[in-house]
Amino acid sequence: MNESPGTCLLDACRKARVPLSATCGGKGTCGDCIVKVIKGTYTIKPSSFLPEKLRKQGFVLACQTLIEDDLFVQLPEFQELSLKATVDMRSLLDQKDSLIADLDVSSPVEKLPLTLPSSTLDDNYSDLKILETEIKKERPLDTVYCEYSVLKKLAHTVREKQGQVEVILFRDGLSWTILDVEPLSPHKNLLGIACDIGTTTVALQVVDLQTGKILGFASSYNQQIKCGEDIISRINYAQKPERLQELHEAIISTINNLLEKAIEATGGATSDIYFASLTGNTTMVHLLLGLSPRYIREEPYVPTLNRVPIIRSREIHLKMNPEARVHCAPSVGSYVGGDILAGLLCTPIVSQIDKISVFIDIGTNGELVLGNKEWLMSCACSAGPAFEGGGTRCGMPAATGAIEKLKIREDGTVEYRVIEGGKPKGLCGSGLIDLLAELFIRGYVDRHGKFNTEKIGNRLVDNEVGKGFLVETSTRSFWGKDLLITENDIANLIRTKGAVFSACALLLKHTGLSFDQIESFYIAGGFGQYLDVENAIRIGLLPDLERTRFHYLGNTSLLGAHLILLSEKNRERVNELEKMMTYLELNTEPGYFNEYTGALFLPHTKKELFPSVERLLSR
Amino acid sequence: MNESPGTCLLDACRKARVPLSATCGGKGTCGDCIVKVIKGTYTIKPSSFLPEKLRKQGFVLACQTLIEDDLFVQLPEFQELSLKATVDMRSLLDQKDSLIADLDVSSPVEKLPLTLPSSTLDDNYSDLKILETEIKKERPLDTVYCEYSVLKKLAHTVREKQGQVEVILFRDGLSWTILDVEPLSPHKNLLGIACDIGTTTVALQVVDLQTGKILGFASSYNQQIKCGEDIISRINYAQKPERLQELHEAIISTINNLLEKAIEATGGATSDIYFASLTGNTTMVHLLLGLSPRYIREEPYVPTLNRVPIIRSREIHLKMNPEARVHCAPSVGSYVGGDILAGLLCTPIVSQIDKISVFIDIGTNGELVLGNKEWLMSCACSAGPAFEGGGTRCGMPAATGAIEKLKIREDGTVEYRVIEGGKPKGLCGSGLIDLLAELFIRGYVDRHGKFNTEKIGNRLVDNEVGKGFLVETSTRSFWGKDLLITENDIANLIRTKGAVFSACALLLKHTGLSFDQIESFYIAGGFGQYLDVENAIRIGLLPDLERTRFHYLGNTSLLGAHLILLSEKNRERVNELEKMMTYLELNTEPGYFNEYTGALFLPHTKKELFPSVERLLSR
Repeated sequence: MNESPGTCLLDACRKARVPLSATCGGKGTCGDCIVKVIKGTYTIKPSSFLPEKLRKQGFVLACQTLIEDDLFVQLPEFQELSLKATVDMRSLLDQKDSLIADLDVSSPVEKLPLTLPSSTLDDNYSDLKILETEIKKERPLDTVYCEYSVLKKLAHTVREKQGQVEVILFRDGLSWTILDVEPLSPHKNLLGIACDIGTTTVALQVVDLQTGKILGFASSYNQQIKCGEDIISRINYAQKPERLQELHEAIISTINNLLEKAIEATGGATSDIYFASLTGNTTMVHLLLGLSPRYIREEPYVPTLNRVPIIRSREIHLKMNPEARVHCAPSVGSYVGGDILAGLLCTPIVSQIDKISVFIDIGTNGELVLGNKEWLMSCACSAGPAFEGGGTRCGMPAATGAIEKLKIREDGTVEYRVIEGGKPKGLCGSGLIDLLAELFIRGYVDRHGKFNTEKIGNRLVDNEVGKGFLVETSTRSFWGKDLLITENDIANLIRTKGAVFSACALLLKHTGLSFDQIESFYIAGGFGQYLDVENAIRIGLLPDLERTRFHYLGNTSLLGAHLILLSEKNRERVNELEKMMTYLELNTEPGYFNEYTGALFLPHTKKELFPSVERLLSR
Repeated sequence: MNESPGTCLLDACRKARVPLSATCGGKGTCGDCIVKVIKGTYTIKPSSFLPEKLRKQGFVLACQTLIEDDLFVQLPEFQELSLKATVDMRSLLDQKDSLIADLDVSSPVEKLPLTLPSSTLDDNYSDLKILETEIKKERPLDTVYCEYSVLKKLAHTVREKQGQVEVILFRDGLSWTILDVEPLSPHKNLLGIACDIGTTTVALQVVDLQTGKILGFASSYNQQIKCGEDIISRINYAQKPERLQELHEAIISTINNLLEKAIEATGGATSDIYFASLTGNTTMVHLLLGLSPRYIREEPYVPTLNRVPIIRSREIHLKMNPEARVHCAPSVGSYVGGDILAGLLCTPIVSQIDKISVFIDIGTNGELVLGNKEWLMSCACSAGPAFEGGGTRCGMPAATGAIEKLKIREDGTVEYRVIEGGKPKGLCGSGLIDLLAELFIRGYVDRHGKFNTEKIGNRLVDNEVGKGFLVETSTRSFWGKDLLITENDIANLIRTKGAVFSACALLLKHTGLSFDQIESFYIAGGFGQYLDVENAIRIGLLPDLERTRFHYLGNTSLLGAHLILLSEKNRERVNELEKMMTYLELNTEPGYFNEYTGALFLPHTKKELFPSVERLLSR
């Protein structure tokens, strides 16, 4: 920070386009804008209430801090947020037979060691001709292209180790493109990245393209959140060209930061990255490419593209090898993106002919897919980021310090488990579902999501932090302030679960199916490591069916990106999925509003839809 | 020029990498470094002898000029040098039946007007999908690719005129690439350039890709000449990376200057240029691409490439549309380049099965091709730039002010024709051949190229300009100084003609053929509009055969670039020529030195080779 003395650090951060939120509006009460000062002098407003211990470590609330001279600050995103890859690849391998995904490692980018023959006066072909000939011997395909940057160094490279080189090749259909040539160096890795570009959070893996091993991982908030929490507000923000550019740069900067962080652990260099597989919703992909998302929002909802041509990393300034190829999973419609198609790779839905399944991905938007081997239908709803930690005071992504599991004891105190232990900072999606279900089942919250003040008793606090149910006291919470859930938070959670449930109900209605005809529900999202299906049913997020029908898969968008990264077959399969899927526009579907308002209760207005919950309540 | 006061303008120009030669070493006597001062103040050294008239127009000799403050100067290259396209396309059309070139206009880049259907809620494909579908209806090919830059503007462009667009497509084999999309605008031209990159001079046409019409033309010295006059000295200069970069930038700057000059007359913009067809020798192509030419010169003479991948104009910073495609004609070996293969398109050699022909292109290097429909053999020799205006004091390219035809009268005075009239500045190739032949036949010069002082009499002057035969007096020459040819100049011309003739003799010897078995000689080069075959035989440049066997074609490299620009068939044919041609390395060919030294006489040591010349001399 290089700002004039006396400037509020939060203002300076925002001016510098640093994505700090401040739910309390800069009053120093929410703790959202906590940062760590690395160097420089500053004054703290007397009203700041950060605990002594954190202050001693250099933490400050940006909204309560005045800059004295140049300040170097570290943002919590890149320091504290370590999301978990929620599903292990091994669990996928268990289902191998029924998955359509190809689990072999056969990346479209490969490294080929070659020994080029020496030229003589009688046999003095050009360097390129010799290289192409040797490549065709090993990999017989129609055409070999060569990047201009490779030509520039070819003469010296082939002579450095007497013709011993390694060639980085990219296969696209029937042609090869030479992305790079290096003197033989067997210890260098060939790297790729898989990245899930969520509206709220972005998660990235660095993968060894030869072994398929995940070498590094990093995740953070999407820096775009400073311009709007959900997709519609981002689209609105992007109306002006300079703001579109701002959003574009924000996501590029987010990915580049993650890249550098994730590659650090691998001992590799960003220039060793030759392929990126990205997944995101249609709007995120448009903003990644710097394309105006305007017509996605305006009727008849037309994106610039669904299937994205392979682009070069340098075209969008990603910090990889400049010739690295970037693949974005295709979208189906304006609101069902490549994250969903990639996610489907992690399910057996399209390998089953006699069973109908549902795939639900709950992020900032909720997307649903219904179908089997013969047909697929999808729809999307604006769920809101409540289960990813947005839109609620106590919510946070499934990262270190988040409560991921929770139970309320008879005496009203709360038992919980924190990711990586220590004092809790907030609740991730699975924790919030547990909390809401427990509050509801214990009668602390009624069907409308309002507090039953008498029943809660002294767990209902009303102090400078707000008014709400006390999850943890200030002394035992990370930020040194009470950890509360307010009625507003609850209303947000109910809106989110209501949007998802009603979208599912409507999709079934449109196809003439009922909930009990669905044999499997595959649930994806950033809830955290665990999702308590019982509790999800209790709040009316999932339908009241046999619990064995539900399968929680975690972040399938990232997993799908990983699968595409490692196999061209998966890339082709995602394209096939795009072709077979139809998209149902909920906004123009009759009965949508009724379905939605009906779902704005705990668990639902129609009690008969949730018999097991009603039985429990009546006990 | 922005230099400290008192700096010599010639030094400042060289520092700024401006290609000004000064044969006299900066003594103010050669006139090579003449420039025009547009703005700024300066002092002229008293020794400067530029005529009053030129001084009044702002001309100065850079070596005699001291900078006083910021100086804006115009270089003679871009002001005075207007080379002639020496052969009209019509003369080519006369030979249509026997040419292998395709003379139809069917450029690989085309403009396609389309009306895109409107989207509806039921039919809301993405903009790209709609565009691709409509393109495939009109141009059914396997694949349509789309450039990233097109994606960025697609959403707005397709809506600007209600779906009326024009698409710029590039066809490469079985695929199309969308290079650009614009709102419909029927008056805009689709432009391309054909460019001959010579070691000494560069010539460029701006061509309408839809009609094939040449809209603009410009030519200039290759700015690289400041780093060396011939290929070997450029290769030596390029040993260090920063000097390779300097040579690369010099040719890019040369082409960009020509482009801007040539496009000015067309009323178009450089962004309307979508395709470039370039021809040049192997080293010129390497330097154009910034590739090290080092191994071209070192045994076993291996270039980085012969066949150049299509590259994008932005990759080498050519001032065209950033997505413009650049094609370089392929080379055969280190010293027979794409200029020769492209030049062959302008001859009927490879359509004749029973006749053997020779194609000779005399530039700074001399290249020869021998063969027919069944086989082609080529070789190259270091001719030197004498016939292009380099290496001699009185020589210049075939541009305005050059003497292109010349005769010596009985009284020793000289009759001549100047290109575009006016006072002569120097002699172009055809003028030099005439002059040498006349001097020799009249006995002013002996078989060794030495002056017969008695015979010349007072036409042999010896003043501050030098000692030589007086072509024109100072008062009647453009630069206001005597126009002379010296013994040094003559020695240079003899070396050049000797190199070409001996290469031809050796090529025939290698294939077991004799001169009289060659039915046609096709001669190309920058001699000027005319080449007097009789005089070329008299000096021993061409063999002494029936005059009807010789055909002067002019700048076939430029013509070939033009043919490739306009037809993909020609591009393919040049590739076929590359495959069928073998290359003979003269340096390692036995008897080369003997052949060469034998040719260093007028017309030749072996008088029996030139019976018609001997008969003339004996009269």
